[in-house]
Amino acid sequence: MYRPAIKVLDCSIRDGGLINKHQFSHDFVRNVYRAVSQAGIDYIELGYKNSRKMFSPDEFGPWKFCDDKDIHRVIDGIESNIKISVMADVGRVDMDTFKPASESPVDMVRVAAYVKQIDKSIAMVNAFSELGYETTINVMAISRDQGFELDEALQQLENECSADVIYIVDSFGNLYQETTAHIVKKFKSVIKSKEIGFHGHNNQQLAFGNTIEAIINDANYLDGTIFGIGRAAGNCTLELLLGFLKNPKFNLSPILDIISDQFIPLRNEIEWGYIIPYAITGMMNDHPKSAMAFRASEDKDKYSLFYDNLLNVKMD
Amino acid sequence: MYRPAIKVLDCSIRDGGLINKHQFSHDFVRNVYRAVSQAGIDYIELGYKNSRKMFSPDEFGPWKFCDDKDIHRVIDGIESNIKISVMADVGRVDMDTFKPASESPVDMVRVAAYVKQIDKSIAMVNAFSELGYETTINVMAISRDQGFELDEALQQLENECSADVIYIVDSFGNLYQETTAHIVKKFKSVIKSKEIGFHGHNNQQLAFGNTIEAIINDANYLDGTIFGIGRAAGNCTLELLLGFLKNPKFNLSPILDIISDQFIPLRNEIEWGYIIPYAITGMMNDHPKSAMAFRASEDKDKYSLFYDNLLNVKMD
Repeated sequence: MYRPAIKVLDCSIRDGGLINKHQFSHDFVRNVYRAVSQAGIDYIELGYKNSRKMFSPDEFGPWKFCDDKDIHRVIDGIESNIKISVMADVGRVDMDTFKPASESPVDMVRVAAYVKQIDKSIAMVNAFSELGYETTINVMAISRDQGFELDEALQQLENECSADVIYIVDSFGNLYQETTAHIVKKFKSVIKSKEIGFHGHNNQQLAFGNTIEAIINDANYLDGTIFGIGRAAGNCTLELLLGFLKNPKFNLSPILDIISDQFIPLRNEIEWGYIIPYAITGMMNDHPKSAMAFRASEDKDKYSLFYDNLLNVKMD
Repeated sequence: MYRPAIKVLDCSIRDGGLINKHQFSHDFVRNVYRAVSQAGIDYIELGYKNSRKMFSPDEFGPWKFCDDKDIHRVIDGIESNIKISVMADVGRVDMDTFKPASESPVDMVRVAAYVKQIDKSIAMVNAFSELGYETTINVMAISRDQGFELDEALQQLENECSADVIYIVDSFGNLYQETTAHIVKKFKSVIKSKEIGFHGHNNQQLAFGNTIEAIINDANYLDGTIFGIGRAAGNCTLELLLGFLKNPKFNLSPILDIISDQFIPLRNEIEWGYIIPYAITGMMNDHPKSAMAFRASEDKDKYSLFYDNLLNVKMD
């Protein structure tokens, strides 16, 4: 029997935007919105609500800023029950660009934060909650930050924070099922008043398996992206997740169609997925940025060179 | 601490041969042999020991037949402690082409069988054991055959069979971690006198995760292939498996080098891996042959058409 509490969030445009500076065409975003709506997905995350003082609109596309008018251009005229999410990074947001939720097409604001930023993220989330938004805090780099500071942060999240959901984010794609289960149980042992979510990265081809493991351990908010699009190795693929979930409201075909029509051609232009340097940073529990730089160099396919470099850096 | 009983078998040439009719060049096979030897892998499986009466040498390359002279041409002059495996399919073998193990470069013979062929496979394995080979029985399509006949087969494997290892083969790439754990535990509950092995397929990006699950549940023989090469979606990648295992004898660099030099170019010529029709047969617990035919058609990227066809066939 399916678990009605499970909610699926598609972040194809938001996480995918990290590999093309959020320069998706208007039609592409509108087609994704239509497809995930038809597929019965619960939330779509369109991008970041970042400050134009920190990021230039000349360099970045509209989904770095997620203005209400751009959101309306994408969604208006398409029948949909999906809710709209935007992401806010700690330290990169103009808080005064957020109107009350009742005046905005946005339903949910997710705040991404490292453990050490937990106080700032709580202040932000509480402000968004007061404006009437659903809110989450997405705790990044969880494979690194599992010590005493996390224990303290979890207590704060439970006691001081109005977020509806606390997400576990495997930013480095380092977890496997035992470590995923351990972390989900740890979060659930402290956080009793909110839901737990999971956002995987696919460096080691484990994002889907880890998402299943999170489900097994009662995480109810699950992120996926179409054809796994996302920074570096990308994410848990939405199509596999829908194939696994049993809720009859989900419909795989619109996702298959948009993969055929849009994502296969896009994958020939920009890369994401199972690419060896990202696998290496995943298994070594490192941020993918070194691998992203390596993939942009002329040595991009000299994998043992990259591996040796990373080993040497770690031992310096 | 690492588990010394764990053995890794590379079947890149054997399973990969299923997508190019075993037509790898001599140099390619020799380079793979050298790389997996340097990486500390325990076994390399070079191909099938199939009958020339059933398969034409005009159509298939040497690794469909694995003559001793071809094996010697690949391995002679390369320093290596690796053991050599060949696969024998029930009903496709000339038993009299097998010399005693002491006169052959082959160390291990693995017999692939469906549950309904278990009596034939036991007879074959017992004959190979008498010739002095290490032996395994690889029980295929395990996601389909889990009923009473499997229970009976497991009893026979324990009581009547001289195989050293019984492999669980997820031929359809349908398992996830809970089903994998269930099956490994079921095998281990009956088979006390032999090791358990696991061979995954990667239709749903779960081959590596399922292999980890098999390890957690005390399977000790693990199959992988370089860059996941293998029929349809391919297999558990050897490089991720080596990154996970802790035995200091394993060395990742030779595998990374041969991916750079040989497998990236090869992947541009023949396809394997995460390809949507294979994901669909995996989630629907079906043999990939319908997807392989679809990928050879002009509709190859019309994924929802394939999905609808398969749904309709299943409901007919």
